[in-house]
This record gives sequence, C-alpha cells and structure tokens, in this order.
Amino acid sequence: MPETTSGAAPGATTLPPDAALLPDGGGTRPAPDFSGWTCPAPLRDHPRVVMGHGGGGAMSAELVEHVFAPAFGGRVLSELGDAAVVLLGGARLAFSTDSFVVRPLFFPGGSIGDLAVNGTVNDLAMRGARAAYLSCGFVLEEGVETATVARVAEALGAAARAAGVEVATGDTKVVEAGHGDGVYVNTAGIGLVPEGVDLRPQRVVPGDVVIVSGAIGVHGVAIMSVRDGLEFGVEIVSDCAALGGLVEAMLAVTPDLHVLRDPTRGGLAAALNEIAAASGTGVVLQERSIPVPPAVANACAVLGLDPMQVANEGKLVAFVPREHADAVLAAMREHPLGRDAAVIGEAVEAHPGMVVARTGLGGTRVVDLPVGEQLPRIC
Amino acid sequence: MPETTSGAAPGATTLPPDAALLPDGGGTRPAPDFSGWTCPAPLRDHPRVVMGHGGGGAMSAELVEHVFAPAFGGRVLSELGDAAVVLLGGARLAFSTDSFVVRPLFFPGGSIGDLAVNGTVNDLAMRGARAAYLSCGFVLEEGVETATVARVAEALGAAARAAGVEVATGDTKVVEAGHGDGVYVNTAGIGLVPEGVDLRPQRVVPGDVVIVSGAIGVHGVAIMSVRDGLEFGVEIVSDCAALGGLVEAMLAVTPDLHVLRDPTRGGLAAALNEIAAASGTGVVLQERSIPVPPAVANACAVLGLDPMQVANEGKLVAFVPREHADAVLAAMREHPLGRDAAVIGEAVEAHPGMVVARTGLGGTRVVDLPVGEQLPRIC
Repeated sequence: MPETTSGAAPGATTLPPDAALLPDGGGTRPAPDFSGWTCPAPLRDHPRVVMGHGGGGAMSAELVEHVFAPAFGGRVLSELGDAAVVLLGGARLAFSTDSFVVRPLFFPGGSIGDLAVNGTVNDLAMRGARAAYLSCGFVLEEGVETATVARVAEALGAAARAAGVEVATGDTKVVEAGHGDGVYVNTAGIGLVPEGVDLRPQRVVPGDVVIVSGAIGVHGVAIMSVRDGLEFGVEIVSDCAALGGLVEAMLAVTPDLHVLRDPTRGGLAAALNEIAAASGTGVVLQERSIPVPPAVANACAVLGLDPMQVANEGKLVAFVPREHADAVLAAMREHPLGRDAAVIGEAVEAHPGMVVARTGLGGTRVVDLPVGEQLPRIC
Repeated sequence: MPETTSGAAPGATTLPPDAALLPDGGGTRPAPDFSGWTCPAPLRDHPRVVMGHGGGGAMSAELVEHVFAPAFGGRVLSELGDAAVVLLGGARLAFSTDSFVVRPLFFPGGSIGDLAVNGTVNDLAMRGARAAYLSCGFVLEEGVETATVARVAEALGAAARAAGVEVATGDTKVVEAGHGDGVYVNTAGIGLVPEGVDLRPQRVVPGDVVIVSGAIGVHGVAIMSVRDGLEFGVEIVSDCAALGGLVEAMLAVTPDLHVLRDPTRGGLAAALNEIAAASGTGVVLQERSIPVPPAVANACAVLGLDPMQVANEGKLVAFVPREHADAVLAAMREHPLGRDAAVIGEAVEAHPGMVVARTGLGGTRVVDLPVGEQLPRIC
C-alpha cells in the first residue's frame, strides 16, 4: 500500500485518554510482520471460534483482549459495552455498530429489523446521545424469499421512524446458500452527545445508586420461547425498544448521571460486572428488588438459567449520584419505558470489581460474568 | 413500540434535497400495516434472492428500488454509489457502510481486512472526505481458526493505520458452522467533508472531462486468479488501496471537482452508468484510452468478460470541469496511486443517461450496466 499517512485525518481529534475506556495505543504500533506470525497471547483453550465467543461474556471479552485489541489499539475495547465518543469537526459524536444474526428473524414483540435499529440506537443512548443517522448493511443468503427481505426492511424502516433516526446509507451483499441464514443485518449509528454529558464507568463512585428501568430477562426468554419447541405456557413478548427518549428524560433531571448500560448479551450480570471492573468499585444488589416477571422466572427455573444472565433489549441500568437518585427514578417511572424502574443496589468501596447480591434469605452470592452464552444468536 | 418520536434528533439536520441523491421521503411516510402486507412493487422475476442481487449491477439496483427505498426512504439509494453526506452538530460528515464477504479471505495483494478498511475509506473519499473513524462488525463462523480471525484483524488494523483512520468501535457475533464462511466483516466510516467540496453526479455538465486514476479490472481478476483453479500464467495482484491521499491531491488543485466514484462491483461500466443516469448527461469514452493491463485483457478474453465490468478496489473515476482537467491529471500522475491516470472520455449533451464507447475501429458501442455479477463475493 503506497499510501502511508500515519497521522489522524484532518478535523479528527482523539479524546484525551481518560475519556476512552483504555488509552489508544494504535497510533504508535509498527506494522506487523506476517511472515512469522503467531498469536502474541494465544487463546490456548480455543484454537477455533466456538459459539460462546459471541455471547457477550468472558469468552467474548477474551477474543477482544487477545485478538482485536492488539490489532486495532485499545479503543475497540468499547465493544465491551459502549459506543465510542469521538470528536469530529468540533462536534462530540457517539459512534457504534452492531451486527444482528438473531434466529428466528421474527419473534413475539419484534424482528431482526427492530433489533437492528434499537440495538444501535440504544448503544448511542448509553453515551447520552440521541441517534441521528444509521447505516445499514445486509448480508443475504441466496434463496431467501424477497418478501422476507422486504418484511425485514419494512420493520427496520418503521423502527427507525419510531426512534426518530434516519437510515442514511446502506449496502447489500449476497452469499451462496449454506453460507448465511436468510438475513444478517449490520447497523452503525452516529449521534450528538449533549454538552455536559459524560457517561462512562470510570465516573462511578461508591454511594452511587443502581437503578434498572424495568423487568429483566424478557427478550431472551421471548427468543427461547419460539425456538426449538420451547414453550412456557404463556407467550412472552420481547421488550425490544428504543431507549433514546427515556435517556433524555433522565438527563433532563441532571446531566450528571455517571454511567448507563443496556444489558443485552450476557444480561444484567455482564453489564454490572463490566461496570464494576472498569470503575474499580464493588456493586451490591438486593436480589429481591430486581424485577423479574413470573413468566421469566418460571422459564429460567425450567431451563436452569439465571435471569440476571438473560439478554434484554429494551432495558437499561444506571449508576446515579445518590443526591439525584429519587428524582431520576421518578422521571423514569413517568416514561412509558421506565414505568417499572427500581432501585436494585449501590456501588460500594468493598470488593472492587466484584458484583454481589444479598439474597432473600440473608445470604450473599457472587454475581459472575457469564462465560459463554446461554442461547446463541439472540440478537 | 411505545416510543414514537417522529422528529429528527437534536442537532441532526437533513441536507436540502438537492444535496442527496434523491429527496428523502422517509420522514412523512406513515408506519406500514403488516397485517395485509404485500410487496408494493414485486420483483416478479425473482421471488427469491439470487447471487446477482449482490453484484452491484441492475439486479442490485432493482433490490434497492423495490425493497429498500420504499422501506427506508429515498436517501438509502446512496447505496448505489456514494457515502451519504449529513449535517450533525454543525459538521458536514460523510457516512458510509460496506459489508465484506470476499472469498478467499486472503488473495494476492490483500485480504478481507484490507478491503474492509479501503472499501469504506474510499466511499468517504468519493465525497471528498478523509476518513476519521471506522466501526468494525465481525460475523464469525463457528469453527473458524482463531489464528485466521487474528490475521484478518491484524490486516485490518494495519490498513487502518496506513489510511490514517482509527477503528473506534466494534462488535462480534458468532453463527453456527454452515451459516457463514469463516469471517464476514462490516465497516462503517465517518469523515469530515471539507468546506467548498460538493461531489455528486448531479453536478456533472456536458464538457466535463472523464479521468480514470489507473489500470482497470485488476482486483477482480486477482480474485478470479486464486479461486477455483483459474490461472492465467502470471500472478495478478489486487490494486486494493486507500484513495484518501489521492483525492486530497486532486482537491488541492481545485475543490470544484464534480463527481468521483470508485468503480468496485460492476466495474467502470456500472460507475459510469450510474453517473450518467443521475446526472442526465451522456458519456462518450475513447475505448483505446482506457488503461487495461495485458494480463487483465488476456484473462477477460479467456473468460469472456468485459474488463469494464470487472471490479476494482484502488481506482477512481472523476468528472472534472474542462478548465481544470490538465492540472488535475498532472496532480494525479504525481501521486503513487495515480501514476497511470488517463483521460478516457467526456460528458456530452447527446444520449442523456447513456454511456457509449468509440471503438478502435471507428465504431460506437453502448456500455451497459451489468445485470447480475460476473463473479460472486469479490469484496
């Protein structure tokens, strides 16, 4: 490649290191020499990719840490939760991407089209940004019905209009039958981060109140309920929704929220563990305060799952300074997507990086990062 | 979905209609009613997706026109060539996405990692923007070697550093064996469009000079040469490269270039037909002026292909006002990626929307948009 500009693009300004999850080491690394290439920190137990690498838990983190971060530089670790926040032309932008490979394409309460919009819109919202523009890349499998593609596109377009975001650019590729699964969708999104808003786990301090916006585990159980003949007596409908409006209502109370996270793959357990690890604080939950619908609890009991590890798609968890917690909770409960918001715990100085739950029986258990995944291809 | 904000996000400003390829009709369309859903303009000949829908030719355009545009609104037609240009927080941004499904993952002169960077960087460059940040979404097939994923990631990271763009955010999904092909990659990119630069086919006027930056057909033939035992005696190396620097050199001569296009899928023929159709001018080429390397010409002769329909990945075609053409050509030839730049034709008033080539024998032939694709999964 003759072109070897090593500086940043004009107008692009990397944020100071403390604004990123990790300092960006990408700019100074020499080009790799492939001739004698070996993985610098091999995933010894996994010479091949397994389904668990896509689960959003410890194995996904391992893939990022050992494979992607060394190749790209540190900032890509934002994959572990947030959108990136970047400066461009004087504007502070949130920028995020997600690929969607959910099976089936249509499920109670939504579709891959809804997920493709809401997943990325929510990633931006977790940095305080209202999504403005989406890109949309389709990978279609040869033989999929055109009407199915059109249904997905209609659902995606409708979800975009509902979330107030414009699909600005797109791309379509087709792969041979047997190399896809009907429709895969990638979206990337950009949005403005409002003045004074700085949401990231490093801002969490002991005493912060942990609030969840509503019942957990619903999206994951909804997908399980329609796959492979699993039925739980009642239909459970995915909570898939765009959270931009709820976040705006919370920021209207105070721009000084500390961190927001949408507990998708890996569930509430993964989201809280990532925040605890990145902030260096501990987290204590009151297990009885966590809203778990009876249908989700029953399904998880049957399947031997922990509802805290089940994926959500229309929920968020917030770490809020104690003095603002009551007002933020009240504002959330006035929003249709936060009606069942609840305080579930707090950040503490003890056991930094660890999440524990006080059980109903007076005991304490460690809430761990899930290792692989409970259910592949949930989003 | 309870959240139904129909307005644009704060800070987001849709460009005036003449700045987009087509006016955006998305904001005012009512939400579709799925209950009685039928495709409003069915693809009667193709109830199922076939490989040709991914080829970047007439069938791809049909999919966009009949399926994606009605669902998303008009702007997504930018898929047919350019990045979108959007206003956000006062900044004029180019925004683009591409998915990459090339087979094999590594080929002479590059890899899917190089394509994933250069493809998106070049889409932004075609609107005059220097890429600042990329997102990167992987869809991995269960069973792919972790070392292969790492090699792709290293190549992607190296290409990003070479192009001066930062991988800011990412995502990884895993699908079961038999539902992917090792590694698929999506990238989206954002970059600033410089003051005074406005590159789009609608600005083309009769008299504009058509310049190509170098030899055509090289990337496509390089992929063919390593797939399925096709060999042409000499190794042909892909020209895959990031064009941001070349475009900067051209814009330094004058910001008043009319349109740039990278002739990827569908080749030079598709790029010129799209420009002719969107600008409402005709294009006349001097066939003998088009630089086709002998190895490409030979391979195309053997395979019965038209070099003008073969994909490129490190080339661009420019429509330049006649008064600046000599200076722009000279600047291109001084850049390593434009050394073989050549004037190949001009825009004319005659036969609007049509591209014709004057042959070496004094005849004239129509250069048509390819219908499907010559070679699936070339990028």
